[in-house]
Amino acid sequence: MTTPTHSSRPSDRPLGVAAIGYAFMGKAHSNAWRNVASFFDVPAFEQKVLVGRDATQVADAAAKYGWAESATDWRSILERDDIDIVDICAPGWMHAEIAIAALEAGKHVLVEKPLANTIAEAEAMTVAAAAARGKGVQSMIGFNYRRVPALALAKELIAEGRLGTIRHIRAAYLQDWLADAESPMTWRLRKETAGSGALGDIASHAIDQVLYLLGDAVTEVTGRLHTFVSSRPGPDGPEDVTVDDAAWATLTLASGAIASVEVSRMATGQKNSLKLEIYGDKGSLLFDLEALNELGFLDATLPVREQGFRRILVNEPEHPYLEAWWPQGHIIGWEHTFTHQIRDFLTSISAGEAPSPSFEEGLNVQHILAAVEESAAAKSSLIQLNATTQTSIEGA
Amino acid sequence: MTTPTHSSRPSDRPLGVAAIGYAFMGKAHSNAWRNVASFFDVPAFEQKVLVGRDATQVADAAAKYGWAESATDWRSILERDDIDIVDICAPGWMHAEIAIAALEAGKHVLVEKPLANTIAEAEAMTVAAAAARGKGVQSMIGFNYRRVPALALAKELIAEGRLGTIRHIRAAYLQDWLADAESPMTWRLRKETAGSGALGDIASHAIDQVLYLLGDAVTEVTGRLHTFVSSRPGPDGPEDVTVDDAAWATLTLASGAIASVEVSRMATGQKNSLKLEIYGDKGSLLFDLEALNELGFLDATLPVREQGFRRILVNEPEHPYLEAWWPQGHIIGWEHTFTHQIRDFLTSISAGEAPSPSFEEGLNVQHILAAVEESAAAKSSLIQLNATTQTSIEGA
Amino acid sequence: MTTPTHSSRPSDRPLGVAAIGYAFMGKAHSNAWRNVASFFDVPAFEQKVLVGRDATQVADAAAKYGWAESATDWRSILERDDIDIVDICAPGWMHAEIAIAALEAGKHVLVEKPLANTIAEAEAMTVAAAAARGKGVQSMIGFNYRRVPALALAKELIAEGRLGTIRHIRAAYLQDWLADAESPMTWRLRKETAGSGALGDIASHAIDQVLYLLGDAVTEVTGRLHTFVSSRPGPDGPEDVTVDDAAWATLTLASGAIASVEVSRMATGQKNSLKLEIYGDKGSLLFDLEALNELGFLDATLPVREQGFRRILVNEPEHPYLEAWWPQGHIIGWEHTFTHQIRDFLTSISAGEAPSPSFEEGLNVQHILAAVEESAAAKSSLIQLNATTQTSIEGA
Amino acid sequence: MTTPTHSSRPSDRPLGVAAIGYAFMGKAHSNAWRNVASFFDVPAFEQKVLVGRDATQVADAAAKYGWAESATDWRSILERDDIDIVDICAPGWMHAEIAIAALEAGKHVLVEKPLANTIAEAEAMTVAAAAARGKGVQSMIGFNYRRVPALALAKELIAEGRLGTIRHIRAAYLQDWLADAESPMTWRLRKETAGSGALGDIASHAIDQVLYLLGDAVTEVTGRLHTFVSSRPGPDGPEDVTVDDAAWATLTLASGAIASVEVSRMATGQKNSLKLEIYGDKGSLLFDLEALNELGFLDATLPVREQGFRRILVNEPEHPYLEAWWPQGHIIGWEHTFTHQIRDFLTSISAGEAPSPSFEEGLNVQHILAAVEESAAAKSSLIQLNATTQTSIEGA
Repeated sequence: MTTPTHSSRPSDRPLGVAAIGYAFMGKAHSNAWRNVASFFDVPAFEQKVLVGRDATQVADAAAKYGWAESATDWRSILERDDIDIVDICAPGWMHAEIAIAALEAGKHVLVEKPLANTIAEAEAMTVAAAAARGKGVQSMIGFNYRRVPALALAKELIAEGRLGTIRHIRAAYLQDWLADAESPMTWRLRKETAGSGALGDIASHAIDQVLYLLGDAVTEVTGRLHTFVSSRPGPDGPEDVTVDDAAWATLTLASGAIASVEVSRMATGQKNSLKLEIYGDKGSLLFDLEALNELGFLDATLPVREQGFRRILVNEPEHPYLEAWWPQGHIIGWEHTFTHQIRDFLTSISAGEAPSPSFEEGLNVQHILAAVEESAAAKSSLIQLNATTQTSIEGA
Repeated sequence: MTTPTHSSRPSDRPLGVAAIGYAFMGKAHSNAWRNVASFFDVPAFEQKVLVGRDATQVADAAAKYGWAESATDWRSILERDDIDIVDICAPGWMHAEIAIAALEAGKHVLVEKPLANTIAEAEAMTVAAAAARGKGVQSMIGFNYRRVPALALAKELIAEGRLGTIRHIRAAYLQDWLADAESPMTWRLRKETAGSGALGDIASHAIDQVLYLLGDAVTEVTGRLHTFVSSRPGPDGPEDVTVDDAAWATLTLASGAIASVEVSRMATGQKNSLKLEIYGDKGSLLFDLEALNELGFLDATLPVREQGFRRILVNEPEHPYLEAWWPQGHIIGWEHTFTHQIRDFLTSISAGEAPSPSFEEGLNVQHILAAVEESAAAKSSLIQLNATTQTSIEGA
Repeated sequence: MTTPTHSSRPSDRPLGVAAIGYAFMGKAHSNAWRNVASFFDVPAFEQKVLVGRDATQVADAAAKYGWAESATDWRSILERDDIDIVDICAPGWMHAEIAIAALEAGKHVLVEKPLANTIAEAEAMTVAAAAARGKGVQSMIGFNYRRVPALALAKELIAEGRLGTIRHIRAAYLQDWLADAESPMTWRLRKETAGSGALGDIASHAIDQVLYLLGDAVTEVTGRLHTFVSSRPGPDGPEDVTVDDAAWATLTLASGAIASVEVSRMATGQKNSLKLEIYGDKGSLLFDLEALNELGFLDATLPVREQGFRRILVNEPEHPYLEAWWPQGHIIGWEHTFTHQIRDFLTSISAGEAPSPSFEEGLNVQHILAAVEESAAAKSSLIQLNATTQTSIEGA
Repeated sequence: MTTPTHSSRPSDRPLGVAAIGYAFMGKAHSNAWRNVASFFDVPAFEQKVLVGRDATQVADAAAKYGWAESATDWRSILERDDIDIVDICAPGWMHAEIAIAALEAGKHVLVEKPLANTIAEAEAMTVAAAAARGKGVQSMIGFNYRRVPALALAKELIAEGRLGTIRHIRAAYLQDWLADAESPMTWRLRKETAGSGALGDIASHAIDQVLYLLGDAVTEVTGRLHTFVSSRPGPDGPEDVTVDDAAWATLTLASGAIASVEVSRMATGQKNSLKLEIYGDKGSLLFDLEALNELGFLDATLPVREQGFRRILVNEPEHPYLEAWWPQGHIIGWEHTFTHQIRDFLTSISAGEAPSPSFEEGLNVQHILAAVEESAAAKSSLIQLNATTQTSIEGA
């Protein structure tokens, strides 16, 4: 089979996009594709095909979400010359197969997190991504919270040294959708189908933020996992919950900073609260995803008399991504992070540059998650990681 | 000329939509049209034409914002049989002429607030709207903040009696884009072009909310207006600012409640802060547009020991409009209020019902604004308004 | 009768203090006298006599609150050579008689706010205070919130020009103890005994803060008063409430700034919330008495990208009054403002300087309250005040 | 030697109190003794003697803080018949010797936390306390935060089942007084003198709260300790810091709940922030010591539509300890927790009941701290604790 390459596209043809999946993430990604060009200068593209298993449902979803066509076989789109980009919103266990095939077919690939359900699959994907990258075919993993303007601003402030030496980070991701012990069994609560529980689902975001914001690598990990409700009602009676409801970890970073990570699906009253606190010797930052337009910043270089955490409403044209939207004080929502992600992905493709976060960065997060599990299994003992093999966050 | 009527449209043809204007409001409305059907069940429609004065710019805007065509003459669209809805985002001084002509041409009309720059124009519009309504042609004014889910929830709670007898309301709308005295002269600061300053622009929203939330009418008004920076740099030297930078008012409501209203474009650090505080004998509500996903609610019927203002994250499927969007805790932005507005407008058209807020409701707000100006001119003396002539908020 | 003077006291004898009243304010003042010397370097003094009408109760209170003796006749203490200071916590209608007699007897006088129930009495008190001041006998009115560290810091920041030109102020004092319509009639709700309602009781604090923080004078006033519950249960059936439950005012300041003032005893859920918002062209301040250890400050001279309201925890040794208390972050309470007040009063006496706020400053506030009532009676019309006759806040 | 017993005191003689130490804690305890009887009904007592090493300084402190006499030898006060209570605010290494001697001398003892610097000393103290208790001689450890009204309310709500089954707790105590790497070496940073760093000083409070609020015992511990700045300037050059700057732990409770604990002296911008988050299946609680008058409470049994964290201003007569202070909304400060502690201590003595927290409860916390250290030394491995030997928090 001849591998078609991206360069075969005539420069004046819009990029053809196909997306796979139309559930929660597919809806969010579709929304981003539908709107990105209304706000940002991006290379021309077309929402060509939405792929799903059920022909009727995917046709309906395609019509609703702005896709020209629908299809039921993801392999079919890899053979089409008019498809340049494949956006994978399918379940985690399908990621590796689709992504590797798409990359080999010369398609740029965006894949939702987690990169894959197993380290082996994730590693195979990074091999494919590296090979494709050599041919100008790009790939990216969808840690969309990197595109929250407040967090992008946080990264800028840290990179500029405004926090000085960072000592420790408190990262938590708290939800409560499993707080009710009578809430029924689902595939998300079985290890076979979901891989892990809160750890893979939301600790992955929290850990990615630590790596992203600090541009650092992890050298040591301790972890604990716990399932508070170990049996839930299934259709035929009680079933065992085989993933964690909550997880705790500490991460030592190569810089010497220490991060605590705590995630839960049982934190009654916390709906989607990714909380970050970053403490440096010159300043500190606070963030909560439930108020994602805001960043707390304390500048410890000011006179003590006037120090305090500022609530920066990250909504000015001076802030990352914001010039494209509305006047100051007109806040944006959660979904906008996906629009920013698509914008950055398209811009990288257009510039022939590797977008970040790369598959390698996704794999890196998965190694850390695996170390948390390993530690939890070994009575929380410290697990060593090799920082030097970790991909630099900054690309390179 | 024969007046085409809405009923001439074959029931299987999608509604044809034209929008006039592509600046700030045109961009926000276009976004709503582009997305509403991806989230809500609405009657079929097509984004047909975007109208603007500059042919090139409007063509670019049409392409960017999802309109099939563009045009430079708004009258041309009134003659088209395939246009059923006209969405007027042009400047206020053009509202009356376009809206009246469109209604007479049998087009449903959505017009941005303020209804018009003068009471006389606004009155003419309500006459046209009433006449059209009799023929099944609908009209609506764009007080979009009625579609903030938290405020829709506030209205529900008040209507259910959860606040008991409402005593007083504090309404403020604070911005700071004129805080810099060196910020240049614009058409918005001249009475001839803008009608008024903060009063018409943002007090109108605050007053509409008081009327909407309480379902009440105003019987007395006091007012003050002030211009803090009376001269600003123009292209040829200093020019006089002839509108208010800030305004203060008290409103007596027919129910006996009293509302204070305070608006400013000089409130340094407040970006787009519509703040509402509503105090009843059984409970109270707090709201701030800069955190529009939240509603503060105090239930004074609970034991004193456990009373306190709750921060309700208005982001659950149980909350108005929210089921259409994302899972709990995934917050929405300012622009979504326009999407909800279009949804409700389309739903009303489809049901053959008069949408709210009506032109009469828009006129009502303008009478109150005029009374504020009248009071301000008369040393802030109380001005009487006739509550019985005020259109019921609830429709009628 | 020979007027004894303060200078007759041997320099090595501690100042003798008498307090009149042991209800709410008497308890708060006693607490301050009992503790001030444990935290601050103040001239030596002794808590000699507590005065009250009921012999048994005042004896008990004296024992409880740290006074050596008790007495039932306030005139008796004016004759005692060992009493140098009289702290008047009696009801407002007694202020004038006691304060004037005490000053004429050569006693330094601290009087709770309001200065008096009538302008005539208040004027007589200022005459007596001025005469006494000439003989080294000092007097002060108890606007204790000037001694909230966060507000003292606010005043410093304003005086240093950190807010630039102040445009407008929002001052509100919201309580809810009358929200229940069945709450019984009391002397506080009768004009004869209380003078006025929320206006005199809490608007006085709000207005004093405006004057204090800005060091400015009022030139124009508009006002409204309202009684939401006009009849309340008395022992023998319903009685008329003859004072205001809530009040609204705007104040024009000599500098050109405008302050809105809103006070209520019906603001359900607001317990003791004196809220201040001060907007200048270089910065802004926020304050709420329910969180009195905090000051919100926005510095608009910083880059826009990093502007935001800071929550300064006013609890550092660098902050006013705080060095005397506990390490950083160990917050103080409401009562500490009285301790600071006594400290400043004693320090002024010791230095032979006139303490602030003077009786003239208290009279000034009452003139403004009277103008609010006058405006309210005249349909809220603007009332002119003569700024040049107003006592400078800064003393002089 | 004959052991004098408390019962030898004539019932009409006030309790005689001696305090040892006049630094930070001595100042706070003295303040409580000076004021408790002004607010609460407590048995009669007298502030007799303040003990300190430096004769001049302790005499000054005694005068300033309201003690009748001063002394330099703590043993001398044990021989005095007129001393019934010994309040030990001396450094931790002196606790055991003084407390045991005082108990043996028949004096009731209040000792500041930590109980002692070593487990052995702490154990000896509990033996002495148990023996004394049998003779009616009481003892208590000063975990004063149990007397924060908001936390006492939290305990009530939990005990009433308002949180349902508690799943997990997030406890953090964050300060920043060591954030500056140039801040000099002190005795607090040497293991020999301080025992431990943030762990003993502030994690002890956090862990005590977990035990107190839940009335539970700890069965498993993991821990990490870290020193971010390992060398600090001493008078003769750099010196090694030999205690932790920060600590992390997870605690498994007998009920199955899991608590995370994180403490730091390097959390720039956090001044004295003991943060608690408690998540149950029926409700949740939030607390921050920097705003100690407030408790966040979410009642998950309410309809989802109106759920949200309430900010309860714990300042009503209905709330623990508050009836004694000021009207609603007049907030109290940090120091009031000590006043409440003395009140409860005196009340227990008067009733002949064992006050809580007992020395056994203090020892219990120290066993947990020791397990954190043990885990930290063993690569954070889980350490088992025997819950059945842990003293019930409720007294027993």
